Amino acid sequence: MNRVLEDVINKNAANTERITAENTLGYVVSDNTSGNVAATSFDNTSAQGIVKHMNILLAGLVQSAVRDLDPSNSLCYLRVLTRKFEYLVAPEELFTITVIQ
Amino acid sequence: MNRVLEDVINKNAANTERITAENTLGYVVSDNTSGNVAATSFDNTSAQGIVKHMNILLAGLVQSAVRDLDPSNSLCYLRVLTRKFEYLVAPEELFTITVIQ
Repeated sequence: MNRVLEDVINKNAANTERITAENTLGYVVSDNTSGNVAATSFDNTSAQGIVKHMNILLAGLVQSAVRDLDPSNSLCYLRVLTRKFEYLVAPEELFTITVIQ
Repeated sequence: MNRVLEDVINKNAANTERITAENTLGYVVSDNTSGNVAATSFDNTSAQGIVKHMNILLAGLVQSAVRDLDPSNSLCYLRVLTRKFEYLVAPEELFTITVIQ
């Protein structure tokens, strides 16, 4: 895991704790360059499944679809509401955060 | 276009008119079986682009990703927030509605 990302995660650990304490099922932060899990509240298998599907596969495809419809536009945020819970995906430059609530 | 869908669209035309009059850029309704545009407030080329990307490509892929993560779960609603506007995609059994706001 990348050093910059590690610093950001450690610096925001208190905030992450406070926010995820209420109303969320958990979160996953993944590194965009390697696609690895950087921080998560889930077990490793679930976290890797979520990163594979949501962060790598979907976020990239949705970004392409949005740009293809309007080349001057770009993806900010993706919300996937399912019957059981909601995935909130925030793709940033170096990392992608997925929260499940 | 399918007869049932045509009836639903005509029956709800007044509501559609009222809702889309405020705060929305437009909407597209597409038939799930054929993938054709059933009703829209956009011109034909834009509507077909939106249907192709959002309704056919993305809604199907997101549904698969959600089911793959948890086989007993299913997609209800998809929100894609972009820098310029937000796509709201509601996949139903026979048709898919996409609203842009």
